[in-house]
Amino acid sequence: MTYCVAIAVNDGLVFTSDSRTNAGVDQISTYSKMHQFGIPGMRQFVILSAGNLATTQGVIKKLEMDIKEGAALNLMSVSSMDDAADYLGQINLAQQSKYGSSSNVSYEASFIIGGQIKNSAPSLFLVYPQGNHIAPSETTPYLQIGESKYGKPILDRILAPDTDLETAALCALVSMDSTMRSNLTVGPPIESLVYSSDSFSLDQHHKLNEGSNFLRELNVAWDSRLREAFSKLSSTLTWPSN
Amino acid sequence: MTYCVAIAVNDGLVFTSDSRTNAGVDQISTYSKMHQFGIPGMRQFVILSAGNLATTQGVIKKLEMDIKEGAALNLMSVSSMDDAADYLGQINLAQQSKYGSSSNVSYEASFIIGGQIKNSAPSLFLVYPQGNHIAPSETTPYLQIGESKYGKPILDRILAPDTDLETAALCALVSMDSTMRSNLTVGPPIESLVYSSDSFSLDQHHKLNEGSNFLRELNVAWDSRLREAFSKLSSTLTWPSN
Repeated sequence: MTYCVAIAVNDGLVFTSDSRTNAGVDQISTYSKMHQFGIPGMRQFVILSAGNLATTQGVIKKLEMDIKEGAALNLMSVSSMDDAADYLGQINLAQQSKYGSSSNVSYEASFIIGGQIKNSAPSLFLVYPQGNHIAPSETTPYLQIGESKYGKPILDRILAPDTDLETAALCALVSMDSTMRSNLTVGPPIESLVYSSDSFSLDQHHKLNEGSNFLRELNVAWDSRLREAFSKLSSTLTWPSN
Repeated sequence: MTYCVAIAVNDGLVFTSDSRTNAGVDQISTYSKMHQFGIPGMRQFVILSAGNLATTQGVIKKLEMDIKEGAALNLMSVSSMDDAADYLGQINLAQQSKYGSSSNVSYEASFIIGGQIKNSAPSLFLVYPQGNHIAPSETTPYLQIGESKYGKPILDRILAPDTDLETAALCALVSMDSTMRSNLTVGPPIESLVYSSDSFSLDQHHKLNEGSNFLRELNVAWDSRLREAFSKLSSTLTWPSN
């Protein structure tokens, strides 16, 4: 499996992804699921991928080829983020139908695409295997793909449109930490990318490897903060009488 | 859906269940998923149920009828908790196969059965739709059925065999609170039952209704404890330099 989450706040966008892929528990590999495209100062895109690895690799390759070959429609020529999501959805569909349908294999893949095109606001979309897409909302300012349930509660409690970028990035990492702890098929390296609105630059990128001090510190610190919070809760609540 | 969790610690057992059942989002009802059987002072069983409502109701009915009619095998006659889980598994299988197989409907159901029979230790089992069962372990001293992912991280962090019963019961409620917040198909009344080892009594039972002050206090208090914990984390961690 995979876990990717992206957050849209007033100050910009946050992207976080794990790097584990597996076909059964005895075939585990490491692949980056975060892909960057853009022209500094003009337009920037970040794409997160989940699902069948052959499909996601095929889709990313096609995006690159369309740019290289100057196809009529490509990420450097689309006029809006919405068009970019539509275009990604079409490529996703085409890639999935390429190998026919087998009853036992799912060729499905999902993507999150976010970024900004000069003279318009940053935005974020989730592209489904069916090719259509959705945006986040003010009350749910995030999108998830892959193994999303373990890490959802912390996002629901912390995130709002006015959350600052650093807090949002940390919240995404805590959500990732909870997911890794409860599910073996999600694992490091963890990538985190923060995009500040109107910066048109993707240089705030961190790759946190398996042995990363920061990941370990985060894990230990959040564990003890959470136990502390629970023990406080436990000392203030009084059970109702039977 | 459903969310039920049961915990086995050194001091006894904890059972927590929601009460929402749904067949589509426009057909939502309230049914208790916690069932009690026993002879005070001699043996006590608590059964939690998830899955197809007709199956779970049929299984519980059959358990009651077997006791009433004095069947050779029934919950009042089984000689061990393991035998009780086996017996429940057989009834579950029989009930599921009663109505043939339809491609669009799943008759599957899962159960958690826990309790104690005089002269043996308390124990806890998860009975699968296939009829077989598993017990919790020292490192994972809990079992879940239904919508289990949202509420798993807090259980993984807090529970150990030496956790006291009140803390375990509160942890199960926090796990339930996180699940209800993130998933509409899990809802109140929430039932909580604490079984103290060798008490052979099920009188520590709470039913927390929709408007319950305790549920609301728990929700508000945990929300603010968690935000506090997160803000502390945020002020102590330093991001690695790029």
